[in-house]
Amino acid sequence: MQILMPEVARQRIAGRLKALGPDLEVLSLSEPGAFLRDGEPAPDAVVDPQVIWATLDGYATLLPIFFDVALKSERPPWLQLPFAGVDQPVCKRLMAHGVRLTKGRGQSPAIAEFIVAHALSLIVPIGQQAKLQAEKTWAFTPWREVSQTRWTLIGYGAIGEAVARRIKPFGAHLTVVRRSSHDDGLADAVIGLPDLPTVLPHTDVLVLACALTDETRGVANEGLFAALKPGAILINIGRGGLVDEDALLAGLERDQPAHAVLDVFNTEPLPADSPLWTHPKVRVSGHTSHDGDGKQARTDAGFLENLALFRAGRPLIGEAALADVGLEG
Amino acid sequence: MQILMPEVARQRIAGRLKALGPDLEVLSLSEPGAFLRDGEPAPDAVVDPQVIWATLDGYATLLPIFFDVALKSERPPWLQLPFAGVDQPVCKRLMAHGVRLTKGRGQSPAIAEFIVAHALSLIVPIGQQAKLQAEKTWAFTPWREVSQTRWTLIGYGAIGEAVARRIKPFGAHLTVVRRSSHDDGLADAVIGLPDLPTVLPHTDVLVLACALTDETRGVANEGLFAALKPGAILINIGRGGLVDEDALLAGLERDQPAHAVLDVFNTEPLPADSPLWTHPKVRVSGHTSHDGDGKQARTDAGFLENLALFRAGRPLIGEAALADVGLEG
Repeated sequence: MQILMPEVARQRIAGRLKALGPDLEVLSLSEPGAFLRDGEPAPDAVVDPQVIWATLDGYATLLPIFFDVALKSERPPWLQLPFAGVDQPVCKRLMAHGVRLTKGRGQSPAIAEFIVAHALSLIVPIGQQAKLQAEKTWAFTPWREVSQTRWTLIGYGAIGEAVARRIKPFGAHLTVVRRSSHDDGLADAVIGLPDLPTVLPHTDVLVLACALTDETRGVANEGLFAALKPGAILINIGRGGLVDEDALLAGLERDQPAHAVLDVFNTEPLPADSPLWTHPKVRVSGHTSHDGDGKQARTDAGFLENLALFRAGRPLIGEAALADVGLEG
Repeated sequence: MQILMPEVARQRIAGRLKALGPDLEVLSLSEPGAFLRDGEPAPDAVVDPQVIWATLDGYATLLPIFFDVALKSERPPWLQLPFAGVDQPVCKRLMAHGVRLTKGRGQSPAIAEFIVAHALSLIVPIGQQAKLQAEKTWAFTPWREVSQTRWTLIGYGAIGEAVARRIKPFGAHLTVVRRSSHDDGLADAVIGLPDLPTVLPHTDVLVLACALTDETRGVANEGLFAALKPGAILINIGRGGLVDEDALLAGLERDQPAHAVLDVFNTEPLPADSPLWTHPKVRVSGHTSHDGDGKQARTDAGFLENLALFRAGRPLIGEAALADVGLEG
């Protein structure tokens, strides 16, 4: 079985790969064109991998090569992606060619930390306490507890699940919005996108963690903000295209939402003239919600777990469905 | 069975009390001296309660009366306290008189929210993101994940447990420091106070959530800060007397700790000339960490739960031990 990956990624897991058995031919790249076998130059290599591990190592230079190898393969491989989003056009082309895609899950716990930290820092009145401290005022700062809040997660993949595991112990009420009605026991309610308007008037924290598809593009639009509970917090770590930014700016005027935590934008980097940069109710971060330091170890472990499943002919974790990329099944 | 409580508290639970049976004589007070029975004036009342529910309703006026009734009782009652701390001298006097004291648990989830929200808001680089936003800089902000942090909780009562339930799903490592070696399955390690120095060099978040006793007074002293991991976060929601504030100020100079979140102080309200007010590495709040809005419902439910146990002759939840107030058992 031939596997292709970046050379730095191979070096991280070389020992664990070797333990899997002698039948693996491990090809790698540290720069375009120069294939290595077990880390040594392999000008004789016939590049026809059954498995491609596309990590973020060499994002700009190597990732396009991996996609190209997969797209030209006569025997389409399984390709492990480094990220959870499959809205890039190349993902649709890969799946149309027959490539099996699995979404990266290594970023999910970091993104969940980002989401929960931002939400909690707005619910517990840390900002109000800082203002009182600045004026040396000793005062109580009552708050509506996390335990009393209702969260709505649009999208319930690895990120949504990671958020659910972290907020349910606070006693928060959780509605997840997803295509399937599968219930993992964490959500208090599972609904489809058409039923979203029924929960918005009661939603304290609205998290956009879904893929960007024709169905979800602009899901956070004028109608959504008009229905949203005043005082709610919006957090978008999905894709900028999920939010109609003009509608958001209008909603913020009415506290629908009262705060927006935005890590992704319609145009990235966010243009200097965007009013979001300076809006007092908006937190802007630079598509960095995934950037926790546990990511790499999880990415490596996740690939090895999927590789073992692949070799055993069992279902892979996080495999994209045709519908995820806008293809019909 | 005679029960004494504030009238406003009685009104909140009157229906639930009635459901317990006709043998309860419910006395209450809305102002000193004027006892009520089932909410009606009862000048004939012989005040000799077996149960006193001391809530925070009428903290300044009624609480001293409840303590006084208990201290003068020839048949010392069970008294449900409104708070978890039993370091006030009156608690020792009550227990010396034979009064059974149970600690309030209604505040614990709110305090846990305060602790976790503050810690996460410092671990996930929200402050750094705000600075970048202020200068319109689009940049990654890598962070050491909560999943990679090690927490040490000094004290493991209701508050410590509530913190543990909320941070373990993040994958944080948790050491609890307590007298008993009882392990509830949440902590990764349980140690006694003498072993605290062994974990301090690896501690990322140090939470003081213990009672103030002769053993714990000044536990956060020069030696503790000298041993603490540089970059650590200190959170004190216990009592001001747990911290040597001069030693803390010296430690902050060396990032031992790098941040201090202080809700309690040696002198409260914190004097205007305290350097803590304006220290850039210190967050000051006004003994308000308990002030979540779920507190009252939990307080009511907790009393009723203990009342049912009391009537059944079963162990009460949160009963103070003699050692908690400095008495020998």
